[in-house]
Amino acid sequence: MKSHLAASALALMGTTASAQELEATLPEAVAAVAPALQDYAETGLFGQVWTADSLSQRDRALVTFAAMVTRGEATQIAPFTALALDAGVTPAELSETITHLAFYTGWGNATAAATAMAPVYAQRGIAPTDLPDADVDPLPLDKEAEAARQNMVQDTYGEVSQGVVDYTETMLFRDLWLRPDLAPRDRSMITVAGLIAAGQPEQMTFHLNRAMDNGLTQAEAGGMLAHLAFYAGWPRVFSAMPVAKDVFANRSE
Amino acid sequence: MKSHLAASALALMGTTASAQELEATLPEAVAAVAPALQDYAETGLFGQVWTADSLSQRDRALVTFAAMVTRGEATQIAPFTALALDAGVTPAELSETITHLAFYTGWGNATAAATAMAPVYAQRGIAPTDLPDADVDPLPLDKEAEAARQNMVQDTYGEVSQGVVDYTETMLFRDLWLRPDLAPRDRSMITVAGLIAAGQPEQMTFHLNRAMDNGLTQAEAGGMLAHLAFYAGWPRVFSAMPVAKDVFANRSE
Amino acid sequence: MKSHLAASALALMGTTASAQELEATLPEAVAAVAPALQDYAETGLFGQVWTADSLSQRDRALVTFAAMVTRGEATQIAPFTALALDAGVTPAELSETITHLAFYTGWGNATAAATAMAPVYAQRGIAPTDLPDADVDPLPLDKEAEAARQNMVQDTYGEVSQGVVDYTETMLFRDLWLRPDLAPRDRSMITVAGLIAAGQPEQMTFHLNRAMDNGLTQAEAGGMLAHLAFYAGWPRVFSAMPVAKDVFANRSE
Repeated sequence: MKSHLAASALALMGTTASAQELEATLPEAVAAVAPALQDYAETGLFGQVWTADSLSQRDRALVTFAAMVTRGEATQIAPFTALALDAGVTPAELSETITHLAFYTGWGNATAAATAMAPVYAQRGIAPTDLPDADVDPLPLDKEAEAARQNMVQDTYGEVSQGVVDYTETMLFRDLWLRPDLAPRDRSMITVAGLIAAGQPEQMTFHLNRAMDNGLTQAEAGGMLAHLAFYAGWPRVFSAMPVAKDVFANRSE
Repeated sequence: MKSHLAASALALMGTTASAQELEATLPEAVAAVAPALQDYAETGLFGQVWTADSLSQRDRALVTFAAMVTRGEATQIAPFTALALDAGVTPAELSETITHLAFYTGWGNATAAATAMAPVYAQRGIAPTDLPDADVDPLPLDKEAEAARQNMVQDTYGEVSQGVVDYTETMLFRDLWLRPDLAPRDRSMITVAGLIAAGQPEQMTFHLNRAMDNGLTQAEAGGMLAHLAFYAGWPRVFSAMPVAKDVFANRSE
Repeated sequence: MKSHLAASALALMGTTASAQELEATLPEAVAAVAPALQDYAETGLFGQVWTADSLSQRDRALVTFAAMVTRGEATQIAPFTALALDAGVTPAELSETITHLAFYTGWGNATAAATAMAPVYAQRGIAPTDLPDADVDPLPLDKEAEAARQNMVQDTYGEVSQGVVDYTETMLFRDLWLRPDLAPRDRSMITVAGLIAAGQPEQMTFHLNRAMDNGLTQAEAGGMLAHLAFYAGWPRVFSAMPVAKDVFANRSE
């Protein structure tokens, strides 16, 4: 596929701030062991996918970062942290992203990500005092919607695990989701990205609807699916496609 | 959430042997990159979850260790090995746990865990001769139940893969499960924890029933779900909740 | 289980080229921390499973390698690369395997594998110029079958994500799958191995049928399931068994 894609790849290399960082996400060993993969990366993934209109480069960087954290890809976190910061994701947003994903993809993924991010933050002079801490002014709560959600979960699962029900209310929906330094639209977008990357389409309906309620467009959602095909693998995305199709159909009725 | 949780967190720090080890499971980078996550860990996870009555700290340590092994979180294995040993899990039990999880979550996870555990064992003077080897006096076999299980699997899958059917009988149910140095209740508990962490609720019914037949209480199972929400991520637990609900309901009929 | 399996284990150790490499895939820490696991590996996994007739050692090495890449088991990639090369998998085939799995299990898994493989390739004097690059003479395309596949996917998912639909056609079915340096039968076999290892039986029907259309026998598929029970964990295989059963049944009608 080399010839017909080289033009757009070269265009990317020359014109966007993140071209060098994209190259930096590809270990040198790839060229040594799999020259064809190197070419698919440069002409296909970097040249076509990252430049497609459906999703901004800033969103692509954030979604990719979320997929890496979810998949526990420690060696990829540092270059994608640099890439995300250069693409316009703020240090506070990345900090909130791993905090959010601690709950949504497991504590260990978030703490491993922190270890990989710390040198990048140190190098750029980003200090803990620049980042949101525990005490923030929360976003307003939609009390009615939250009460309905909580009642439903309490009724369904209260006898299975009251702990899950309680922590879901106190730590997630009345705390984490109200933190202001990551927009609700972005918070939902990384949650959906994490669910796709983790292979949990069965949990996606609620969060994709929430993402779209908070401003993610259908075109962006479709662009995110195409982007994640590369970073989470084709089968993960093909298992998510029917769920997205249903969500889109139900919203257009 | 800082203020209203600090008291219980401080109580934990002062009174249990594992407080220091819990802190040791949190890389220093977390405070540098995500101060809010540091606070959720200290006040929420360590202060509330680890001290909840539903599950003993010994069981929490064992369940967390099993989740880490299943998720391949190599960098977390060493501090959680130390934590588990301090919380009352024996060296033999941890050794049996990774042997068991080799079969239930893949050989590579177990061997990577061994590599991470070895320095902790060496430091504490735990020698291979202190640990159960291949030749042990097996627990008694429930021949009738095993014959029924084997017949069912043979009938269903014999023509699909006789190898799977045979190894399941000879290596798992007539060998591994009868090893005495990890109690059947604990063996089932780590199996269920592994299934939740791996996102396989579809395989959970048999093993959760077996765990409860062997002494795991419904309250403990509920506590394990709440605990694993943090270490395996909320969506993994929410996909396991309907299965647990059905198991609980069927057992109370 | 030591006594009755030792004979076949010893036979393996003495007679096959890969015995030493198999031992090399077991970190030394295993004997220190879990002597019983060491014994299960030597007598059960290496002595029984790797020598079973259902699947060649070359195929076992390739399938295991694919499972490791899919699971992101970086520390296991180097010894299994050496093992695969010694068992008859060519450097070009391994190179194509990670390129293929970049699309089927995520880019990061493939690039991490490349990093782990590079020292083995360097040590054996395998240069990039020995490996297939982007420009190869493609295998002939079955235009009718591909048009049918593409029309079906376009109709079903064109409005969900045109990007996914387009990349699936241009990069996968009209490009990657036609690359000649990994046989279609092997390409399908590693895809199925990846789906089992990733816990995606819901995507397996198409690819297992394709594998068998391209020459994988039912006995080999059954042998692959038994082999992967060890490397991907029993529950992954038990979730794949009903899908394999249906595929086998539908093909024999």
